[in-house]
Amino acid sequence: MATRREVNVGILSSVAVAAATKAGLAETPQDLILPPPSLGGGKTLRQALGDRQSIRDYAERALPKEVLSNLLWAAWGVNRPHDDGRTAPRWRGVYALDVYLAMADGVWRYEPKSHKILFHMAGDLRGQTTTGQSFVATAPLNLVYAFDMSKLSGTETEKTAAAAACVAMVGQNVYLCCAAEGLATVFRESVPGEALARTLKLPPTQIILFAQTVGYPKA
Amino acid sequence: MATRREVNVGILSSVAVAAATKAGLAETPQDLILPPPSLGGGKTLRQALGDRQSIRDYAERALPKEVLSNLLWAAWGVNRPHDDGRTAPRWRGVYALDVYLAMADGVWRYEPKSHKILFHMAGDLRGQTTTGQSFVATAPLNLVYAFDMSKLSGTETEKTAAAAACVAMVGQNVYLCCAAEGLATVFRESVPGEALARTLKLPPTQIILFAQTVGYPKA
Repeated sequence: MATRREVNVGILSSVAVAAATKAGLAETPQDLILPPPSLGGGKTLRQALGDRQSIRDYAERALPKEVLSNLLWAAWGVNRPHDDGRTAPRWRGVYALDVYLAMADGVWRYEPKSHKILFHMAGDLRGQTTTGQSFVATAPLNLVYAFDMSKLSGTETEKTAAAAACVAMVGQNVYLCCAAEGLATVFRESVPGEALARTLKLPPTQIILFAQTVGYPKA
Repeated sequence: MATRREVNVGILSSVAVAAATKAGLAETPQDLILPPPSLGGGKTLRQALGDRQSIRDYAERALPKEVLSNLLWAAWGVNRPHDDGRTAPRWRGVYALDVYLAMADGVWRYEPKSHKILFHMAGDLRGQTTTGQSFVATAPLNLVYAFDMSKLSGTETEKTAAAAACVAMVGQNVYLCCAAEGLATVFRESVPGEALARTLKLPPTQIILFAQTVGYPKA
């Protein structure tokens, strides 16, 4: 009998494998359509602000797709479809941020317009998203924030500040969503940005300044 | 008879003047104890995320003290008094951010631990918090984020990214609080940082990367 952990860890890949098998493809993880995010109910903003904190002890239990859907919409989802408005600001009218999800069985990229997570590469790269914090490799999800610097102008300092601010606003949304949903998270600068960008085969214009670990708090 | 605008614009200064007069001081604005923030009720986090947006058209109506109290607590308030935990993260265990409030009758600094706004200097400096956006000078409040770079280590890029991220998380809290309270706001990089830091007589270690306009949306 599968343990709760095994069942949870397998949710994403089993759905993907079923879809792939149905389509006659090899058994590899594929793009995932998330269920629609829950937009009604939930905690108040004030409760979420009151409970916001950084947590560094995680259970290994995976995140159900419904939770992942709510989390990604809160982070960087489309809240005004008529002009692709998002839950966090674009910068100088341009979207330059990609949010990658490093999970146990691969890496995906969040696509806000379709609210899908697009398969990016196989393999467990969670441990490669940190410069040494041990909890990172076993927490179920690490968000990796990749910012395309070629979409900004200005001095290097101005560009760095703009990229960091854009990412951090998404990160704060994740903090508040985790506080509201009983999840644990920590926004991290301990990221081997250049090495990770190479591993993820990002274009040279995309840089990684921050990552963010998400999971259930350790009981 | 005073117009609504005059009454509202005068709320802060009249309270301060009354306190100063009672204490036998000259009629200058002084420190203000805010009413306790409202921690119960209000919109859900999901509603606030759904309504988050940048607005650049403001009424001139001032913010009542109750609204200012809720806004500042949401932005950077103490949510875990036992260890001075805040609604947005400290950076490497250290608080390095000061939030200044440029209003029609002076500049104050928010002090999260006592939930007061401390008088900093007289004068209407709102128009000096922008490099040219005309709505800034007449909106009732401009938050000016001053970050003490001497409290960080690392490369200049790392320090800039950390400072910007810290500020932006507070800025996102302001966005969400404004969405929940029916206020308008925009986070701005169009700030004459060095000149403004000199005008505000900040220590040379404090830099200003961003400001944020807050008010009521223009009807």
